[in-house]
Amino acid sequence: MNLTLAEIAKLAGCELKGDENAKATGVCGLDEPKADAISYISNADKISLPESMNIAALIVPETLKGKEITFKGNLLYAKNPEWAFTLLMRYVDTTNKYITPSVSPRACVSAGAKIGKDVFIGANATIEEGAVIGDNTIIYPNVYIGRNVKIGNFCILYPNVTVREECEIRNRVIIQPGAVIGSDGFGYIFYNGKHEKIPQIGNVIICDDVEIGANTTIDRAKINHTVIGTNTKIDNLVQIGHNVKVGASTIIVSQVGVAGSTEIGNGVIIAGQVGVSGHIKVGDGAMLGPQTGIMSNVKPGEKLMGYPAMPYGEFMRVAVIMTKLPEVYKEFVSLKKKFKIF
Amino acid sequence: MNLTLAEIAKLAGCELKGDENAKATGVCGLDEPKADAISYISNADKISLPESMNIAALIVPETLKGKEITFKGNLLYAKNPEWAFTLLMRYVDTTNKYITPSVSPRACVSAGAKIGKDVFIGANATIEEGAVIGDNTIIYPNVYIGRNVKIGNFCILYPNVTVREECEIRNRVIIQPGAVIGSDGFGYIFYNGKHEKIPQIGNVIICDDVEIGANTTIDRAKINHTVIGTNTKIDNLVQIGHNVKVGASTIIVSQVGVAGSTEIGNGVIIAGQVGVSGHIKVGDGAMLGPQTGIMSNVKPGEKLMGYPAMPYGEFMRVAVIMTKLPEVYKEFVSLKKKFKIF
Amino acid sequence: MNLTLAEIAKLAGCELKGDENAKATGVCGLDEPKADAISYISNADKISLPESMNIAALIVPETLKGKEITFKGNLLYAKNPEWAFTLLMRYVDTTNKYITPSVSPRACVSAGAKIGKDVFIGANATIEEGAVIGDNTIIYPNVYIGRNVKIGNFCILYPNVTVREECEIRNRVIIQPGAVIGSDGFGYIFYNGKHEKIPQIGNVIICDDVEIGANTTIDRAKINHTVIGTNTKIDNLVQIGHNVKVGASTIIVSQVGVAGSTEIGNGVIIAGQVGVSGHIKVGDGAMLGPQTGIMSNVKPGEKLMGYPAMPYGEFMRVAVIMTKLPEVYKEFVSLKKKFKIF
Repeated sequence: MNLTLAEIAKLAGCELKGDENAKATGVCGLDEPKADAISYISNADKISLPESMNIAALIVPETLKGKEITFKGNLLYAKNPEWAFTLLMRYVDTTNKYITPSVSPRACVSAGAKIGKDVFIGANATIEEGAVIGDNTIIYPNVYIGRNVKIGNFCILYPNVTVREECEIRNRVIIQPGAVIGSDGFGYIFYNGKHEKIPQIGNVIICDDVEIGANTTIDRAKINHTVIGTNTKIDNLVQIGHNVKVGASTIIVSQVGVAGSTEIGNGVIIAGQVGVSGHIKVGDGAMLGPQTGIMSNVKPGEKLMGYPAMPYGEFMRVAVIMTKLPEVYKEFVSLKKKFKIF
Repeated sequence: MNLTLAEIAKLAGCELKGDENAKATGVCGLDEPKADAISYISNADKISLPESMNIAALIVPETLKGKEITFKGNLLYAKNPEWAFTLLMRYVDTTNKYITPSVSPRACVSAGAKIGKDVFIGANATIEEGAVIGDNTIIYPNVYIGRNVKIGNFCILYPNVTVREECEIRNRVIIQPGAVIGSDGFGYIFYNGKHEKIPQIGNVIICDDVEIGANTTIDRAKINHTVIGTNTKIDNLVQIGHNVKVGASTIIVSQVGVAGSTEIGNGVIIAGQVGVSGHIKVGDGAMLGPQTGIMSNVKPGEKLMGYPAMPYGEFMRVAVIMTKLPEVYKEFVSLKKKFKIF
Repeated sequence: MNLTLAEIAKLAGCELKGDENAKATGVCGLDEPKADAISYISNADKISLPESMNIAALIVPETLKGKEITFKGNLLYAKNPEWAFTLLMRYVDTTNKYITPSVSPRACVSAGAKIGKDVFIGANATIEEGAVIGDNTIIYPNVYIGRNVKIGNFCILYPNVTVREECEIRNRVIIQPGAVIGSDGFGYIFYNGKHEKIPQIGNVIICDDVEIGANTTIDRAKINHTVIGTNTKIDNLVQIGHNVKVGASTIIVSQVGVAGSTEIGNGVIIAGQVGVSGHIKVGDGAMLGPQTGIMSNVKPGEKLMGYPAMPYGEFMRVAVIMTKLPEVYKEFVSLKKKFKIF
């Protein structure tokens, strides 16, 4: 990035108060200010900044317009400073990552695969027969795309991702390195004294604008589809079992496990290391605290936490009392003795 | 699949009551019936089906033979409907996945490796010196097979699997994408103010008919062997520490961690996200509920759950009371005041 | 290994009492003695060994010098037997793994990358433009090294590792198979009814002598750096969020998750499956027991365990009482009835 503040104001949808010809070459957090970088405050209350902090300009909420603040440098007024800052970060990111569309001669693209326009396919990537890759999609080196896989437009598949046969990935999907889409669901039938494998002949469908974290695994359905809904974001090392359906705009944090056939609604937030049992439903807008164990249906909007799971407020109360248990128990035993109750 | 019901009856070991020349092209669940597909009910009690469900045929328990059921379509009587259905799924699966044995010119097979008959080795797979690959084994693209690794017959190694040097994988083993076999065990000695690495010079032995989930990691032994017993099934993102021994026909669900040198018996079931400490024994047939923390030996047949682990029934009782703790505590405090006990 | 006991004594810094021309070809644990192998006891108390255990020699603490022990075979006196044994294991390991420096013609090394002396780069590895690889570093097949990545000297990157663009890995770092360094942090802004991606434009810095486990994921910073300090050891399947700072000589066991922007001190020990919330601090020398949930700052030296986390001793007392809760509750209810208290 190498832009004037006037250009930056335009890019980020801000109103500039300051030197429009001053230049900035990057962005920074307020904890590590840089002389030629743009930073931001999201909250109008945080205005006790030093007068002379050495940054190129500060994005502030437009509610501060006309008000005095301690910081005397260049200001960029924004309706939503965090969003304005995100737009600048996107500009930096796009500039850094520019990739020229091309198919590496070291990639193994089946003659029976169909490759869209302006696609990038890196070295040692494998695209099997019948696969379809949409326009402007980027496939990094060492990615494996199985037979008949469909991938939409503007997707990014980072290195060492595996997408097994017959899966479908729609548009603007980002898959971080090492993620596995379409591994076999975990299904066996105990027959004649042995666990016998039940083939997993369904697939995985990943809808538009989904992001999948590094080394996350999403199992294919036994029959039909495992589905990840539009705009849902899944963090690293998450396990999604076979035939799970996740709704739209849901957030699933790292190391969560969702067992087979469970349905997660829209706008759900699942914190890290939560376990969700199979064959249950988690309603829209539910929030599940870290490490929570969910063993039965969750109503829309419920906030649960703990193992076993309880309403959030209850968990907090129980947590406090748990630490008092040894003392209470001692008192209770004395009480029994004293009154010879039992 | 494109078979007559007569052919399907034979394939699945069923007795047909219906049109033997009718055709079916697939299988389906009862929740998503398809006109030309076979479905099943496993339980004789579930017989209140609609008369005219639009499927090609329904597999039912042979105990229903001669009885009236509401469904009037073609019937396939089976001793074990789930098993009959599994056989059909296997037929579909085998047809879908047929792979012509061949070694890709893009694979890197060491001259010092020994490759069996009818083997498939995909592009960008690496087979190091001294490795032995058994007959009919399938090695997908981007798999790494280290020096002196032995792999048996009829194995399937999906893309991006790593098997490090000296490990042994026996027959009919399936390894899902991204799994790592033979990574170094986590062993250090604190010496002169630093953690110094203890080399891990043992290996991993994976016995016949084992399946290993996607992105699961199985560490090599410090000395000797980490062992996964015959017919044991391990789900995705599981961690098996160095020198662990897992018995036969054990089930280990996703995200379980088993620390070093622990011995897990035969026919054990370990639910998702369980943690098992190192240097302990889990007896044959034990069952460990989801997210349970196991810190000491488990007797054969024990059913434990919770953190800390308790017998299953006790956990359930404790769970109920935990939610009552805030109220009980309040009452207890009043009681103390009222009776001036303390 | 094929050395005389005299050579072994020298290699391991021991004093030999026995046949200096006797040969040994390996090492063994005492649980599986081998005729031509060296074993050890670390503790002077463990001296009730059989007289005639069939091993080549036994390393014992030098405090036993001049004392009678039951074992009558060759002895190697060591100041620190475990360390002496580790030195022998390292000798075995180095011999086994010897790799001739070379760059595979099947590797894809960008013309714009800078490769040090005596480097090994395996088949199908990709080294992007601007990357710098230090001397004596080993890069196994199928590894991906992104643009402008810096890797120091004497590093080992096992197969299928991904290091994304701009990350920095210093010297003597070992990365087990499938690990991902520099995946995007999990950051979104909810804007206009959608989760919009916040680009993650920082990087990851991994300091000297760090080891990273198989399939572990370390996210790049939003801005600035995610940092893993010198000599820290991270096990398999661990998640390190964006902008986390881990200090020096810290141990992080398998399946731990550390959320974004948290700071972990020096010499911390985090047991398996622990979850650490974001934006908190864990002080130097803290110890966190298995499966613990950390939701607020931890003081230096604190030993915590449980969910919610408590001091270790307290957790143990609470654990005991939890199993008594059903009985206590019953008694409490009777008491209330009997005395008509409520």
